[in-house]
Amino acid sequence: MITLSSDFGWPYPAAMKAVILQRTDARLVDVTHSFPRHDTRTAAFWLREILPWFPPAVHLVVVDPGVGTDRKAIAIRAGEHALVGPDNGVLTPAADALNDGQITAYELEVRDTASHTFHGRDVFAPAAAAIHDLGVDRIEDLEGTVRLPEHETIDFPEPTLTEARASGRVLVVDQFGNTVTNIPGHFLRDRAAATARVNDASVPVCRSYATVGPGQPLVTVGSHGYVELAVNQGRGDEWFDVQPDDRIRIDLAPPAP
Amino acid sequence: MITLSSDFGWPYPAAMKAVILQRTDARLVDVTHSFPRHDTRTAAFWLREILPWFPPAVHLVVVDPGVGTDRKAIAIRAGEHALVGPDNGVLTPAADALNDGQITAYELEVRDTASHTFHGRDVFAPAAAAIHDLGVDRIEDLEGTVRLPEHETIDFPEPTLTEARASGRVLVVDQFGNTVTNIPGHFLRDRAAATARVNDASVPVCRSYATVGPGQPLVTVGSHGYVELAVNQGRGDEWFDVQPDDRIRIDLAPPAP
Amino acid sequence: MITLSSDFGWPYPAAMKAVILQRTDARLVDVTHSFPRHDTRTAAFWLREILPWFPPAVHLVVVDPGVGTDRKAIAIRAGEHALVGPDNGVLTPAADALNDGQITAYELEVRDTASHTFHGRDVFAPAAAAIHDLGVDRIEDLEGTVRLPEHETIDFPEPTLTEARASGRVLVVDQFGNTVTNIPGHFLRDRAAATARVNDASVPVCRSYATVGPGQPLVTVGSHGYVELAVNQGRGDEWFDVQPDDRIRIDLAPPAP
Repeated sequence: MITLSSDFGWPYPAAMKAVILQRTDARLVDVTHSFPRHDTRTAAFWLREILPWFPPAVHLVVVDPGVGTDRKAIAIRAGEHALVGPDNGVLTPAADALNDGQITAYELEVRDTASHTFHGRDVFAPAAAAIHDLGVDRIEDLEGTVRLPEHETIDFPEPTLTEARASGRVLVVDQFGNTVTNIPGHFLRDRAAATARVNDASVPVCRSYATVGPGQPLVTVGSHGYVELAVNQGRGDEWFDVQPDDRIRIDLAPPAP
Repeated sequence: MITLSSDFGWPYPAAMKAVILQRTDARLVDVTHSFPRHDTRTAAFWLREILPWFPPAVHLVVVDPGVGTDRKAIAIRAGEHALVGPDNGVLTPAADALNDGQITAYELEVRDTASHTFHGRDVFAPAAAAIHDLGVDRIEDLEGTVRLPEHETIDFPEPTLTEARASGRVLVVDQFGNTVTNIPGHFLRDRAAATARVNDASVPVCRSYATVGPGQPLVTVGSHGYVELAVNQGRGDEWFDVQPDDRIRIDLAPPAP
Repeated sequence: MITLSSDFGWPYPAAMKAVILQRTDARLVDVTHSFPRHDTRTAAFWLREILPWFPPAVHLVVVDPGVGTDRKAIAIRAGEHALVGPDNGVLTPAADALNDGQITAYELEVRDTASHTFHGRDVFAPAAAAIHDLGVDRIEDLEGTVRLPEHETIDFPEPTLTEARASGRVLVVDQFGNTVTNIPGHFLRDRAAATARVNDASVPVCRSYATVGPGQPLVTVGSHGYVELAVNQGRGDEWFDVQPDDRIRIDLAPPAP
């Protein structure tokens, strides 16, 4: 199985699929090609949340603002999974999540015949197909591949937590405006029906979006396990007036005795 | 075969696919993940029109504004097909169309470990995979599943027809502005080249969009079999100034003797 | 393998897939369903650039503003590939590219039972499935199919080139604003780091987008092999103020001695 992720929209992903299908009859599964353009941080977050749900696979990831520069092309082995893409950090959080931080990175050969603007087609897709058929434990056998002592990564900020206060940041906003913070869901556990103070607003802590009426704000634990600022059938980012990287402080009233 | 439909856009559908592929090697086919958010009525219409073209399959459908509330999670058997999703009516018109109204509904177990915000991944995808491998005639054998005496449905309004007048409503507007009414296509049969009065406008009855020039309005019989208000290479909803649920009256002049 | 391309967005492509899957278990690969609506020229360009990367396949292409009129339904054999769609020229540049101009066209039967608004579902999808299972060398054996002496095509303009000046046109603008001209990439070869005069602006000739800073303009050789006007992490069409079919003149200074 080969999964494909990019910020390419259309029609470029089809060229990557075509190149892969010239080389292997692996099953292809699109993760998404709608990542915000060149936004390696958002892509890295979602890949970390989604790829671990997959069975063993080769994951082709192309969010690559530095294509054609001297940034390396890499493959990472993470247990029974492999990830292929640019060495700009976008692969690393998912790789770590797939194998509990036990990962090995390799530099891929970029041939002179590759274009300087579309390594997804000319470098990464052929490598993903080759690794799929070779086996993820044999990346080193790919011609021109060398083990890398270090590679780029993307770090997400850590929150500060006490019993009643969490100080964190917005990690991403999904396309519906649901605002994912870095505050772990357990901070809100057993507080459903309580009121939380989020920056300067008082909003209910809810188990699900529809606990409040349409258009009403809430904080909840999203499916990724983090505290999410949301509006039932609306946009949380607009109601709370926040965007990625903004600071979020949540204060909980002490539970009733 | 498992089909997938939702209003999730990206990246959430990939998590559902990953969960399914952990459990089965069924073929996956996306119907769409672009249904208007939380619009169960529009989704129900399109699913009713499209799913019957498929060979026997398990159809996973997640348009679920009430996720995490006490709305039930269900599976419906409709002949050789099964549908899996929330009990909010979105499944029912398609289920009825797939087996001529002969359907059986089952309530699915929602385990305590499921998130309250993403039953597509935590409840419906595992159920779809299990039903696929078990067989659609063995839904009752799924652990925790019970037959339901009744389930939610979505009804579409019926038009009133005479020889020369149809009174109906807009069912949906597609992304190009083609406006689908509930008036059956046979109302216009054999009237190509006639003029129809649609609410307050006189427009030609055409067999195809390009019968009129670009930007010109028409009424035609759409591929779903209903009367459609359209503009060749333009937006019918804007020209006719209508939206879903609006009333439509069409008057036909008597045919020439 | 059957590839699918259209300007349908959603949900219509799913109906085409369903019809195909009723008839064959071929692998299905989406090229895109996001071609600009009714824009046969843009679709023809991208199909010409992308389809040749695929292994032998049947390519279903539906960009069909004349559906339901007397435009023919056709299949084209191009070596080991076949293309199926409307006879409006959209298939021809890709067909020529797939087999070096050695192609044969056939008219497909349109049955009376086909809708007049969705030949993708009612004519082209069944034909693609049938040709897939029959073999691309047996298109003539399809019931009602006749060889066509001629068919429509779409021609792209040719540039005028000297050593130091290229006069051409914009072919397409991709969704990110990268502006593809008809000027072949070799015009810029070995000129990286030079300055080019593009219409009235002086911009650097770069091997990759990120050679310049974010928001800065450049000319480069795109992955399709043509000269592209671009802005690193921005929109080339806006910076250069151009759109498809506009004239582009590029002057190169003589290389340093």
